[in-house]
Amino acid sequence: MISFKHILRSVEMNHRPIITILTDFGLRDGFVGLMKGVMLQIVPDAHIVDISHDLPSFAVSAGGFLNNWSYGYFPQGTVHLCVVDPGVGTKRRVLILETQGHLFVAPDNGLLSPLLNSTHSKKIFTATNTQFWMDKISNTFHGRDIFSPIAAHLARGIPASEMGNEIDDPVILPIFKPLQITNDSIETYIRYIDHFGNLVTNLEESVFMDWCSKNHCKNEDIVVQLPANRLHGISNAFGDKEPGKLLAVFGGFDRMEIAVSKGNAAVTTGLGIGDPITIHLIKTAKR
Amino acid sequence: MISFKHILRSVEMNHRPIITILTDFGLRDGFVGLMKGVMLQIVPDAHIVDISHDLPSFAVSAGGFLNNWSYGYFPQGTVHLCVVDPGVGTKRRVLILETQGHLFVAPDNGLLSPLLNSTHSKKIFTATNTQFWMDKISNTFHGRDIFSPIAAHLARGIPASEMGNEIDDPVILPIFKPLQITNDSIETYIRYIDHFGNLVTNLEESVFMDWCSKNHCKNEDIVVQLPANRLHGISNAFGDKEPGKLLAVFGGFDRMEIAVSKGNAAVTTGLGIGDPITIHLIKTAKR
Amino acid sequence: MISFKHILRSVEMNHRPIITILTDFGLRDGFVGLMKGVMLQIVPDAHIVDISHDLPSFAVSAGGFLNNWSYGYFPQGTVHLCVVDPGVGTKRRVLILETQGHLFVAPDNGLLSPLLNSTHSKKIFTATNTQFWMDKISNTFHGRDIFSPIAAHLARGIPASEMGNEIDDPVILPIFKPLQITNDSIETYIRYIDHFGNLVTNLEESVFMDWCSKNHCKNEDIVVQLPANRLHGISNAFGDKEPGKLLAVFGGFDRMEIAVSKGNAAVTTGLGIGDPITIHLIKTAKR
Repeated sequence: MISFKHILRSVEMNHRPIITILTDFGLRDGFVGLMKGVMLQIVPDAHIVDISHDLPSFAVSAGGFLNNWSYGYFPQGTVHLCVVDPGVGTKRRVLILETQGHLFVAPDNGLLSPLLNSTHSKKIFTATNTQFWMDKISNTFHGRDIFSPIAAHLARGIPASEMGNEIDDPVILPIFKPLQITNDSIETYIRYIDHFGNLVTNLEESVFMDWCSKNHCKNEDIVVQLPANRLHGISNAFGDKEPGKLLAVFGGFDRMEIAVSKGNAAVTTGLGIGDPITIHLIKTAKR
Repeated sequence: MISFKHILRSVEMNHRPIITILTDFGLRDGFVGLMKGVMLQIVPDAHIVDISHDLPSFAVSAGGFLNNWSYGYFPQGTVHLCVVDPGVGTKRRVLILETQGHLFVAPDNGLLSPLLNSTHSKKIFTATNTQFWMDKISNTFHGRDIFSPIAAHLARGIPASEMGNEIDDPVILPIFKPLQITNDSIETYIRYIDHFGNLVTNLEESVFMDWCSKNHCKNEDIVVQLPANRLHGISNAFGDKEPGKLLAVFGGFDRMEIAVSKGNAAVTTGLGIGDPITIHLIKTAKR
Repeated sequence: MISFKHILRSVEMNHRPIITILTDFGLRDGFVGLMKGVMLQIVPDAHIVDISHDLPSFAVSAGGFLNNWSYGYFPQGTVHLCVVDPGVGTKRRVLILETQGHLFVAPDNGLLSPLLNSTHSKKIFTATNTQFWMDKISNTFHGRDIFSPIAAHLARGIPASEMGNEIDDPVILPIFKPLQITNDSIETYIRYIDHFGNLVTNLEESVFMDWCSKNHCKNEDIVVQLPANRLHGISNAFGDKEPGKLLAVFGGFDRMEIAVSKGNAAVTTGLGIGDPITIHLIKTAKR
């Protein structure tokens, strides 16, 4: 996804394995610390990087979004551990996904939907081999007892195929619906709300640029239609409009966001996850 | 405490020393970052793992609970640094505790009570040798100036015995009282309240299982008595009862918790740390 | 700034490079995790230490204070990455500062003012060489796309001089004003408010001690004048006065703080950043 002109080829180096963690466990009660302890017992040289632990409880949709956004900024070979798991203690499966040179470990509850929906080649395993779990499994903390040791064993080089069988029927959530694109419009929707209240859509900048290029659109031809607001053009930065004004911008999530200059768009608009945003291409008179 | 069927023997590897940190310093003001800087000056290859920094200020009882729960998930040889220190700037001693292959550094204020109460063999030192402190000691931040360098020197292999004399009179807090167990009942109490509002007792699952086995009890024979509520049986998961209902469950803290399905038990019951919970074994008619 | 009697000379060891990070990005949305991913692609062996990510948004003054306080607790050679960047997406420059054996990367918005104001020798560069940036630069997340790769390339040994030209006109903010010292008084002001509500001034303990020594003052001769309160003497610890009472103390920030024993001085006094605090030396009758 990204390359550097001057990069050291980390895959050619004898580098430490990297594990990222994304949970809704919070940082107050030590849950994440214990997961790291379990992993360091198995792979003592790992570099463990926190993505977020402050997701709203059971926010599978938000977790899936952040995971799909973040993994590409890590080197190939990274293991991405995602535990947002309302079904902990039930029989829901534990997935390992191999795709694009990355490994993902998550409950089979739709958390990996964006990656499972993609057209990239992939292999999916259900990690049933208890040899790679902890000996004692609690009913309420599989993040520590099942997911962490699996991620650590993957990071030290155990193939996913040793941990369970390949499957082809993972859970995919409908919330992760694809864009609807025509020559005149792109229908997207709100996928994530960040802590500033910015409304982040699933429209990636590269997709938008290709569409613009194909349809010869100029910025003055673009209308962004919210349920109760209409914005003209895409802004270049949050500060491009007066404080308090709504704007559309391609931000750090690499996707179109609806923001309020020096304000909180979620509060201003009252919109939430799943609400529709449509981009229209208006052929203006002057063209 | 835990073993893995497939574990790499980290003690046989030339691995990096691990230091865990547990404080009430918060993450906003940089205090924890500075402690890490001080430690990395002394032991540059350390792996430093945060357990929690969001304890309520001066919550010695909560800190002692989390430390006693968490250490066993780390490899032997780990140094556990615990700084919840209302007496900073006074003459309270600085302790090093060696037990079960782990090292603990903490103020002598009862924070280590659960470990000091245990029957495992142990050695306790008072770390008076200023050679292992920083040169300049502030009155208000011993976490950085005294505790961190001691932990780092231990992690790089300096024996505790070089840092001060052995003692046998550490402070032990009465809040860390033992269970009262008879054939008919177990008297426990609320030891910790997590950020979900779950009321965590000091009754470990293994102790409960042994007691059940010895007294031939079935789950239908169990009554959990709260000050103003009575629960029948132990549940397997938080979702085992309808939303809003109280339940008792052995959770991720490896101890019995009182929870409210999709709710907050601390709010629902009004109970707090120290309040009693008693398990009664009721020999029902059908047996 | 600090030395240890028993320190291992980390510069003589083949140790891992250290990068510290200080931002106002919060930890909820994954921004900091992505910065770490980008850095680990370039310098896989780095030790990355969080200073704070919970600064108020765009708090350049607070960020500059924490950076100036924290860097000295890390080994020489550490790269300090500071991103509090209200001007993201504009033409503001990206600075690299070399001073006292440390490297700093920050936007040219005054964040480095305390270091730029110091009399230590220094070199300042503007990092314009896009070879050391990411290929794709967003308008809103230069922390990931520009600052992180620069810090990582510095950490792996690329000289700052390869990344851009030396400059001598960095932005310096007036808020970072120097102390006014006479034989009778020291005029300081509130530079930072920590999460306890303590009002931290820019008066360093060493400066105060030198002034006291030079002017033969005793603690009973000291008056600390706040806009609406007058304190007599400097306390040794937060607990030196009764709960609720204001006091002045040299705390963990290595500077004089105004605190309320077991209380919140910012709330009690209503004072904020920039408000003046003056120390007067009162030659009492008994002397």
